[in-house]
Amino acid sequence: MLLGMKGDLMPELRQDIVTGNWVVHATERAMRPTDFEVRRVAHKTNPQDCPFCPGNEVMTPLELFAVRPKGSEPNTPGWEVRVVPNKYPAFSEVEVLRGARDLFQRRQAEGLHEVIIHTPEHSLTLATMPCEKVELVLRVYRLRYHAASLDPIVRYVHIIVNHGFEGGASLEHSHSQLFGVPIIPALVQQELAGASWYEKSRGECVFCAIASKELEAGERVIFQSEHFVVIAPFASRYPFEVWIIPLSHGESYVTASDDELSDLAQVLKDVLRRFSDGFGDPPYNYYIHSAPVDGSEHPYYHWHIELMPRLSTIGSFEIGTQMMINTTTPEVAASFLSSL
Amino acid sequence: MLLGMKGDLMPELRQDIVTGNWVVHATERAMRPTDFEVRRVAHKTNPQDCPFCPGNEVMTPLELFAVRPKGSEPNTPGWEVRVVPNKYPAFSEVEVLRGARDLFQRRQAEGLHEVIIHTPEHSLTLATMPCEKVELVLRVYRLRYHAASLDPIVRYVHIIVNHGFEGGASLEHSHSQLFGVPIIPALVQQELAGASWYEKSRGECVFCAIASKELEAGERVIFQSEHFVVIAPFASRYPFEVWIIPLSHGESYVTASDDELSDLAQVLKDVLRRFSDGFGDPPYNYYIHSAPVDGSEHPYYHWHIELMPRLSTIGSFEIGTQMMINTTTPEVAASFLSSL
Repeated sequence: MLLGMKGDLMPELRQDIVTGNWVVHATERAMRPTDFEVRRVAHKTNPQDCPFCPGNEVMTPLELFAVRPKGSEPNTPGWEVRVVPNKYPAFSEVEVLRGARDLFQRRQAEGLHEVIIHTPEHSLTLATMPCEKVELVLRVYRLRYHAASLDPIVRYVHIIVNHGFEGGASLEHSHSQLFGVPIIPALVQQELAGASWYEKSRGECVFCAIASKELEAGERVIFQSEHFVVIAPFASRYPFEVWIIPLSHGESYVTASDDELSDLAQVLKDVLRRFSDGFGDPPYNYYIHSAPVDGSEHPYYHWHIELMPRLSTIGSFEIGTQMMINTTTPEVAASFLSSL
Repeated sequence: MLLGMKGDLMPELRQDIVTGNWVVHATERAMRPTDFEVRRVAHKTNPQDCPFCPGNEVMTPLELFAVRPKGSEPNTPGWEVRVVPNKYPAFSEVEVLRGARDLFQRRQAEGLHEVIIHTPEHSLTLATMPCEKVELVLRVYRLRYHAASLDPIVRYVHIIVNHGFEGGASLEHSHSQLFGVPIIPALVQQELAGASWYEKSRGECVFCAIASKELEAGERVIFQSEHFVVIAPFASRYPFEVWIIPLSHGESYVTASDDELSDLAQVLKDVLRRFSDGFGDPPYNYYIHSAPVDGSEHPYYHWHIELMPRLSTIGSFEIGTQMMINTTTPEVAASFLSSL
């Protein structure tokens, strides 16, 4: 029995009537219960079967953007970084109207879901790519972030990397994903509320305060560069969680200067090298938190990157409370990561 | 280098200054970064090395409660269900005062963390235990729930099962955990707010409404028993997530009658059998959501159980937004699980 419902493949947003939380149901990704058994085992792909390798451009949807030699044709080899729509989008552009029915609030998960392929080389990762290639990726982030922010349906742009199977990656070829989300997600709303409250009550940006107080205290600082401070955050949710905070205040990733991105490429590579040296190429996640693109100003907000190697498993406590139990204090994490 | 900090082993609660979220740092569980590599591989334990097997009572802290023959000695074999403090507690009773320092809000993670060992048989699980033994476990839940609610520091009692390594279980011998939490966790606060709002605006309990509307609609109902309806919830966060909702209204698990617990034992076993038949003994989680024990009444709340097989991995989207992407709609989940 094929359980995917024909004509019902559009991703959809549903709201829990009790908590108010929105959930994305993106059913293009998984059709049958048996698919899940396969997914529990990580599998290596050969470059000839990898949709992100040069020569296989036809295996992805048509490209949205690429860094490629002038005059070279789209969707052919020769590119350095390539951006394509996600084949199994969590958010998509097609419009389908749905009625809300009392307890059961649903809307189409309109928005964007792009894949940013970091390099044509199947075996390279952000940790092993040359620094200038990582910088190129960070500049493509800025371009696509800006493009996504112009879409009227998009209220929040979420750029992420999932690395490794336990990190949520379904393909091993190094890539980022950009989500253009039609609502402001819960965690971002919380950060905005907290940052706004702090600014109102203390007259300064909470992230600027964290950066300077952490540098003063020292015990949670991993390292510092010209433009960034790298810390294990005080209320770390994950073992060895790391935040990269820009030293100069800016609400959005699009406001990052070329100089900052050039520095960030080194900083990012350095953090990922420490993860790799410390835990042997662990699965990891990172994402950029940046001000919403909902047409308002958010001068009290301060973009930054949050990273976590995936060394532990959440259980029923965390799922049922939305409260994390972390077995490593950030002081221990900073002391270990800064020693590498 | 030993990174566990001596004299700093008490679990602690830290508040994120930006989001307001509380995190538990429970460092007794993991000392060295290298511990995490070991933890990534599930390991089978032999009954002779298992701290939850009869004969090994000395391997756990002293028992808090046990179902055992009259006159038999505590901490010796002969028990049917045994309750002990968690050796590596996320919440503990010892009191240590900590100063709050501006940005860095911390308090000791005071509270309770108990282990409820379901059976002396190492190889049995809730899915394979006789129904009357599962009923016994459910009655022990009620007893320990009541005992925990009398502790003045405890504001919320969270009873859970983590099954399988990917479900967060560190020991395979079947057991539950009871957390006596000194705050009301975020997700429970959200449920309380949502249930209270619904009751005020519609004049009825939102969970009673969900139960009756789902039975009416039918498409998300998996099965029904004398006292419970079992559904795939409308805004399911996980593939094949299941809720067990009592048909008669009651704010707390302690209000469940003997009849209800007897029925619940069958219902719970049946859901776990469906998980097992559908996905081949998958890792899973469940927890009981019940009204806080903070001294207030919560007549608008309605206890229930939420269960999820752990078939998928969360990534940077979910971690960075607190918004879930689910690849299986509850309609598909209900249709599959009810067919088993």
